[in-house]
Amino acid sequence: MGLIVQKFGGTSVGSVERIQHVANLIKQEVDNGNKLVVVVSAMGKSTDQLVDMARQITKRPSPREMDMLLTTGEQVSIALLSMALHELGLEAVSLTGWQAGIHTEDVHQNARILDIEKQNVLGYVEEGKVVVVAGFQGITADGQITTLGRGGSDTTAVALAAALGADRCDIYTDVTGVFTADPRIVPAAAQLKQISYDEMLELANLGAGVLHPRAVECAKNYQVKLMVRSSFEAVEGTEVKEEAVMETGKVVHGVAHDDQVTKVTVKGLKNEIGVLSRLFNLLAEYHINVDIIINQNIQGEEQTNISFSLDTDDLDKALQVLDDHKAQLNYEDIVYERDMAKVSIVGAGMISNPGVAAQMFQSLAEAGIEIKMVSTSEIKVSCVVPHKDMVKAVQTLHAAFGLDRVADKVSATN
Amino acid sequence: MGLIVQKFGGTSVGSVERIQHVANLIKQEVDNGNKLVVVVSAMGKSTDQLVDMARQITKRPSPREMDMLLTTGEQVSIALLSMALHELGLEAVSLTGWQAGIHTEDVHQNARILDIEKQNVLGYVEEGKVVVVAGFQGITADGQITTLGRGGSDTTAVALAAALGADRCDIYTDVTGVFTADPRIVPAAAQLKQISYDEMLELANLGAGVLHPRAVECAKNYQVKLMVRSSFEAVEGTEVKEEAVMETGKVVHGVAHDDQVTKVTVKGLKNEIGVLSRLFNLLAEYHINVDIIINQNIQGEEQTNISFSLDTDDLDKALQVLDDHKAQLNYEDIVYERDMAKVSIVGAGMISNPGVAAQMFQSLAEAGIEIKMVSTSEIKVSCVVPHKDMVKAVQTLHAAFGLDRVADKVSATN
Repeated sequence: MGLIVQKFGGTSVGSVERIQHVANLIKQEVDNGNKLVVVVSAMGKSTDQLVDMARQITKRPSPREMDMLLTTGEQVSIALLSMALHELGLEAVSLTGWQAGIHTEDVHQNARILDIEKQNVLGYVEEGKVVVVAGFQGITADGQITTLGRGGSDTTAVALAAALGADRCDIYTDVTGVFTADPRIVPAAAQLKQISYDEMLELANLGAGVLHPRAVECAKNYQVKLMVRSSFEAVEGTEVKEEAVMETGKVVHGVAHDDQVTKVTVKGLKNEIGVLSRLFNLLAEYHINVDIIINQNIQGEEQTNISFSLDTDDLDKALQVLDDHKAQLNYEDIVYERDMAKVSIVGAGMISNPGVAAQMFQSLAEAGIEIKMVSTSEIKVSCVVPHKDMVKAVQTLHAAFGLDRVADKVSATN
Repeated sequence: MGLIVQKFGGTSVGSVERIQHVANLIKQEVDNGNKLVVVVSAMGKSTDQLVDMARQITKRPSPREMDMLLTTGEQVSIALLSMALHELGLEAVSLTGWQAGIHTEDVHQNARILDIEKQNVLGYVEEGKVVVVAGFQGITADGQITTLGRGGSDTTAVALAAALGADRCDIYTDVTGVFTADPRIVPAAAQLKQISYDEMLELANLGAGVLHPRAVECAKNYQVKLMVRSSFEAVEGTEVKEEAVMETGKVVHGVAHDDQVTKVTVKGLKNEIGVLSRLFNLLAEYHINVDIIINQNIQGEEQTNISFSLDTDDLDKALQVLDDHKAQLNYEDIVYERDMAKVSIVGAGMISNPGVAAQMFQSLAEAGIEIKMVSTSEIKVSCVVPHKDMVKAVQTLHAAFGLDRVADKVSATN
C-alpha cells in the first residue's frame, strides 16, 4: 500500500516485553502491505542511568561526550527491536543516526537536522526490509555524533517521513492522543480526533508534551500527516494535519500548561537602539531558549528593564551567561522568580473572535490567580502564573471555554 | 617523550571508581611528557547484560544486530573515561571504532582489521589531546558496524600502535603479567620479566588468556613492543618483544591450558585427493576455527577418518555445517568427544632440544593421564587430555620441566 514512518518513544520500548509488543504492532502494518521505517528512542530509564554515571564522574560533562554517551541508548533499542522483528519472521535492519544519513548542525545536545541523505534507508526499504532508525541522534559534517535535544526522536521521525515522502507518520506514545487539556489535571478533558498543525504547534510549544514542537513545525513545513496514538492501548489516536475539522462553535480547542517556568528581569539597561538584540542574540548564542519577552520601553527615559521567561532548567546557564557579559550588556541588576507556570488557551478560531484574551484574564481574576506575564499569538493566549495556582488555572479555563462539555460529548460517542 | 598506546580491559573500567583510577594512570603518563592513545573495552558486566537482553528476545540473534548492540558497550566507556580525564584537567576526546578509522572485513562478530585510517586520531594527538578509542569495533567499507571477536580490544590497541608508530603498547589487565602457568592452577607459577612474540603467540593461542593471539601476531608483524601489566597493582609487568632474555638453561618457559576443547571425528570419508581441503575450507567459510588436525591417511585404503579439535563453543555450529553439507563432503558419520582440555608446553629453546615432547608424554603417562591428540610446533607441544585431568596435567608438567624452581628463584629476587 504505502510507506509509513512510525516512532516509538522510551516508554513504548521500555522493556524486552514492550519491544516485543512494538514488533507486533509493526508486523500488523507490514501484513497490511505497507513498507515501514521505524524510529525508536532509548529504552525507558536507560538514559537516566547513563546520565547518572556521568554525574558521578563530573558535574559539568562535556556536551560532546554526553552525546557520545547518550546515543548508545537508541543504538541498544534499534538492535533489540530488529532482533524482535526477525523473531517474527520479518526482514529488518537497524541504522544509527549517522548510518541513516541524519545530518545535523555542529552543536552538541541540541542540534537541528540540516538534511537527510536518504539513499541508505531507501535502499533497505526497496529490498523489502523494515528499517529501524535510532531517533534523537545525527552526525555533523566532520563526523561528530550529535543529539537533537529533548523530544528529538519525534523530529527524526517527521524529518524522515518528509525526506522519504511517506504517506503517514505515526507517533506512538504513552497517551492515546491529543487532549483538550492534560487529563491528569483536568479529569473532564477529552481526546481530539483531529487538530491542525498550527494549533498542535502552539500546544507542543506550550508544554503539552505529546509532540515536540520542532517535529510539528517540520510536519507542517513538509505537510507530513501525523497520527498521535498509544502503543499501550489499541484505540484511535489524534490526526494532525493542515485543515482539521474541529467542533463547530468552539473558539478554544485546548488548554495547555508548562510547569517549569522562570521569569527573569534584567534591570537598569541603557535605553538605546540595539539593547534587545544584544541581549537575546547573546542568549541564542548559548542555545538558551527564551519564551515570552516583555519590554515596556518608554521613550525619553534613560534606563529600561527587560523581562523574559525561560525553562527553569536553563536558568543557571542563563544567569552565568548574563554575569559573564555584564560589562558588555551594561545592566545594573538581575532578578528572577522561579516557581512560575504558564497556562495557555489555543484555538484556530481565535483570529476572528476578539475578546477571547479578555475572557481568559477575567476567568483567572475571578479565580483569584495573579497574572505575571502575558503573551499572545493569532491562535493562542498564554499567561504566566504562580506555580501553586497552575492546576486551578487550567481547570478554570477548561471549564470557562466550554471544553468540559466537549469532553462529555466525545466520551458519549466512544 | 613518546607516543604510547594503552589498552584497558573490561575489569579495568568496570565501575565509575575504576574509570577514575584509569584516568589517573593515564595522567601519570601524560605528566611524564608522553602523548597517549587509549583503547578501552566495555565496562565489566555490561556486555553480559546486553547479551542477556538479546537472548530474552531470540535464541539466534542476527550477527549484524549483535554487533550493533554490543558496540554500545565500549562507546559508553570512552565517553565516561573522557569525562574523567576532563575532570583531571586533561584534554581528551573519545572516538568510536568508525571515527578512529578502524576498517575491517565485512564479517560480523569476528572481523579482522584491514587497515587503519589514522588521520583523525593523529589530528587529535597533534592537538595535544588524549584520544580515547573504543576497542573491539570497526566499520566495513560499506558502513556496517562490526566487532573483532573475543579479545578484540587488544588487537585494536596493537593495530593502532603499529599504524601510529607508537613507542610502546601497554596492555592493562587484571593480572600483573605473563606467568609460567595460570597461578590459579599452579600456585608455584612465577611471573616472567620478558617473553618473545613467538612464545607469547603460542601461549595466547593456547588459552593463556592474557593477550589475544591476533594482537600478539600483529605486534610481531609490526614489531610493536608490548607491556602486559596490571591496572589494579602498581607492579612491573611482562615485556613482550622479539628477542627476549629468558632464564638460561630452561627449555620450557610456560605451561598453558585451554579448557574448552571438543574433539570431532568425521568418519568414512572417501580417501581421495582434496578431501582435507574440501572439509577445512568449508569450516573456514563459516568462520569455525579448527585447532589440531589429525588424518592418518593410509595409502591404498578406500576410506579415511579425519579428526580435529575446536573450541566447544563452536561445536553446534560445526555440526550444523557438516550436516548441511553431508552430500557434498560424502562421509558416513560424525562422532565427537566434549569435555576435553588441551595442555601445552612452550619454549623457544625446544627447537634445539630433541626429546622434549617425549619427556612430556612420559610425565603425563606417569601421572596416569590419557593423551587423546597431539600437536607440535617448533616451540610448543600440545596434548589434548580429558578435562577432568587438566589441572593435574598442568601441575605435573610445570614441575617436570623445572618451572616450579624458576618460580622460587624469581620470587626470591622480588
